[in-house]
Amino acid sequence: MASDIQAAIPSPTGNTRLFAHVGHPIAQVRAPQLVNKLFAERGIDAVMVAVDVTPTDLAATLDGLQRIANLDGILVTVPHKVAVCAHAQRLAPAVELSGAANALRRDTDGRWAAENFDGSGFVQGLRASDFDARGRHVVLVGAGGAGAAIAASLVLAGVQSLAVRDVDTQRAVDLVTRLNRYRAGAAVAASDADFGRADLVVQATPLGMAPEDPLPLPLDALASSALVADIVMRPARTRLLEAAAARGLATHEGRHMLDPQISMYADFFIGAHSA
Amino acid sequence: MASDIQAAIPSPTGNTRLFAHVGHPIAQVRAPQLVNKLFAERGIDAVMVAVDVTPTDLAATLDGLQRIANLDGILVTVPHKVAVCAHAQRLAPAVELSGAANALRRDTDGRWAAENFDGSGFVQGLRASDFDARGRHVVLVGAGGAGAAIAASLVLAGVQSLAVRDVDTQRAVDLVTRLNRYRAGAAVAASDADFGRADLVVQATPLGMAPEDPLPLPLDALASSALVADIVMRPARTRLLEAAAARGLATHEGRHMLDPQISMYADFFIGAHSA
Repeated sequence: MASDIQAAIPSPTGNTRLFAHVGHPIAQVRAPQLVNKLFAERGIDAVMVAVDVTPTDLAATLDGLQRIANLDGILVTVPHKVAVCAHAQRLAPAVELSGAANALRRDTDGRWAAENFDGSGFVQGLRASDFDARGRHVVLVGAGGAGAAIAASLVLAGVQSLAVRDVDTQRAVDLVTRLNRYRAGAAVAASDADFGRADLVVQATPLGMAPEDPLPLPLDALASSALVADIVMRPARTRLLEAAAARGLATHEGRHMLDPQISMYADFFIGAHSA
Repeated sequence: MASDIQAAIPSPTGNTRLFAHVGHPIAQVRAPQLVNKLFAERGIDAVMVAVDVTPTDLAATLDGLQRIANLDGILVTVPHKVAVCAHAQRLAPAVELSGAANALRRDTDGRWAAENFDGSGFVQGLRASDFDARGRHVVLVGAGGAGAAIAASLVLAGVQSLAVRDVDTQRAVDLVTRLNRYRAGAAVAASDADFGRADLVVQATPLGMAPEDPLPLPLDALASSALVADIVMRPARTRLLEAAAARGLATHEGRHMLDPQISMYADFFIGAHSA
């Protein structure tokens, strides 16, 4: 881990507000150290800890966490982004559209609100790398929680076409249907031809976290002008990105989606209590 | 809070092992900052956070916490020390005798073990203040989780007599019965006369945490040679200790029970995984 992101923070005390980052696995996450650095810089007495919980145990653990009086919010990563929506009473538009959430907070009235910053974080990250999604042809591989949120934000950002592929064909079709209900003709289920004309290919499956994972998309089908984006955080340079770079394609790492979200998280979590 | 105990620690990451300190209220606890300082000094990638959970929510929250794969232990304070015993499959002798636990850990086989360091911490704290409990007359006020653990360790340390009082008379009688089963004649339910002959009076109720709390014991009945010990951590100088000092009695603060326990906790929690 880069030492620049593991800031020293004051030890938590009995007065510290808690935030949990749930996922499975959890070792790869970067949000706790980034959010904690921001809390320390802003003088906020709060700490975020990473919580490793399996899908089997998710409901019981979320129930337990949501009963903790000094726990104000929960950040969510793979594979829980869809399942956590059932644990919130208020769903933001990005959650309704994507069917997935990556942040929950307890509002001042005690109800839990769900938001999803993956999509807006991803689009902001593209902009910061000088790629404007407007008018572009995009292929998205992976229609899970993060993929659905990215799809929603790409449609909102005005892509020309969005083609979606998932090993679970029905899941891809369901996402396309939701997107087209929002804007007719916005999305299609991806054909092989879509890869050849893509300006941007987004890898939004967990494949690439393990070194033995297969490549999640047909790299040879891409045009030489295509940008290949991967949302996997660790390793930063996935097999896919390494292979794309070896072919001379431009690449875009997972951190570009996360970095713009850190201040969004802090505003979302702390805003609930300073409002 | 004294700045000497709120050490700077590395921010938790996705690899950090978790420990929760449950209680209600929780703001007064000192263990998280002391244990975290020890973790940092020993180079252990672990963090303890304070968790505020009501008795109503305790069972569901403990269930949720115990399902977290990277959570290895739970420290317990008022009012949960008795209730948590139901969440462990292995009870140490101090837990069996006192009916209370203040530390739970997941053993390497996945079972949860309960320990209680309050009693041994209290007796060690007395020794560190040059008070040897052996052969002394002691009155204990408060037969809850911490009081029961202290009673057990005082009996093990060889006090001459231990008189127990609690607003819940049956709770005091139950503790006396358990102690006498262990060593016949070790304990009695306290009479007013016991206060007059006490060498040591131990205040082990939560009274004194709030400034408006009544004095938990009849200070005027004590001999001028009596030592008055309070287990309340915050404020350090409770109304009882202030009133006792004003009468010229020697006093003993709550931190003396906690301080020796910090390394006991760390050994208990970390030992399970290095064993």
